[in-house]
Amino acid sequence: MTDAPTPPPSSSPAPKAPDASRRSERSRRAILDAALELIGETGFAKLTIEAIAARAGVGKQTIYRWWPSKAAVLFEACVLEGVDPAGVELPDTGDLAADLRTVLRATVDELNDPRLDAPTRALVSETANDPELGRALTEKVLEPQLQAYARRLRAAQEAGQVDPDADVRIALELLVGPLFHRWLNRTLPLTHAYADAVLDLALRGLAPRP
Amino acid sequence: MTDAPTPPPSSSPAPKAPDASRRSERSRRAILDAALELIGETGFAKLTIEAIAARAGVGKQTIYRWWPSKAAVLFEACVLEGVDPAGVELPDTGDLAADLRTVLRATVDELNDPRLDAPTRALVSETANDPELGRALTEKVLEPQLQAYARRLRAAQEAGQVDPDADVRIALELLVGPLFHRWLNRTLPLTHAYADAVLDLALRGLAPRP
Repeated sequence: MTDAPTPPPSSSPAPKAPDASRRSERSRRAILDAALELIGETGFAKLTIEAIAARAGVGKQTIYRWWPSKAAVLFEACVLEGVDPAGVELPDTGDLAADLRTVLRATVDELNDPRLDAPTRALVSETANDPELGRALTEKVLEPQLQAYARRLRAAQEAGQVDPDADVRIALELLVGPLFHRWLNRTLPLTHAYADAVLDLALRGLAPRP
Repeated sequence: MTDAPTPPPSSSPAPKAPDASRRSERSRRAILDAALELIGETGFAKLTIEAIAARAGVGKQTIYRWWPSKAAVLFEACVLEGVDPAGVELPDTGDLAADLRTVLRATVDELNDPRLDAPTRALVSETANDPELGRALTEKVLEPQLQAYARRLRAAQEAGQVDPDADVRIALELLVGPLFHRWLNRTLPLTHAYADAVLDLALRGLAPRP
């Protein structure tokens, strides 16, 4: 977020700058942890900046100085909780099916994790109604993850394991779309077996034509 | 919804019953139409029962008599706006690809329809945080539609056009999941060409093994 805290530069001449910087980072982490904890307890609608501040042991103004809204706090907490999106890379052992199985099963575990379920739903809920927040989340968190799928599929394409004519940016959505749909709509249980079945169908669709 | 209005039985002995029933149905439709209009103008958070009542030309109490919350009003408005879920059936011309292309392109058009976009997002937003409402929406609206896909795929399976070992309840999610994912997350444009590409990959995955 553009309103993320900027620690004082380390070259600051003030003698206490390193301490202030550490304190600032500690407060920031405490606020993000508190937001994640509270969203699981109260849901987004009842989450307040006051409650986050009290749980984190900071003043309300500390939060407002760094974030414009509770949604922004939650957004950054979720970004932080996930893998650094800029550095995300799928495994590449040369076995496309095995690599994707690992990643999709891990995604199932994450979506089923009670600690992440509530904040992720709260964020989806907020972004459904707030196009600006939605675009930020898609650009900063979701799309970098999808691009990692695209890169892995492109590598498989170059290795002759995927139809050279397949559009990998679309193909990856046949993997992540069904998991997201089942999780968000709570249609049926989201399990490893489900992820494996989705993967099997998708990979058969992507196989090079004989 | 269980709180949907029940018109007086037509065998009612009161001489004015037919008029009252018609008036009741008119009010109900006016309320649902007003809710759909307003959600597009104000978003869910700022939508109020008062505003719905004013727009529909009814008293607030009329709404509260029939629905417990604004989410419930919106839920019924969306159900009404869609095809009657109990009667939904996919076309079956014998050409599976053509039939699914028709349905998926229509789904793209619906998701891109400005009149439906805002209320659908508002409902997704509400259900993400409200498991009870979410389950009701899934059970009454979503799952009947998914079952129609399952029936169409099963018919194709019986006609030898789909791998007999494929789990059609899972396969259909490779069709609807990607569309839903792209629409909700606003990753890239949701177009007919996208729906066609998803369908092509999924159907290749479902083809009978040689």
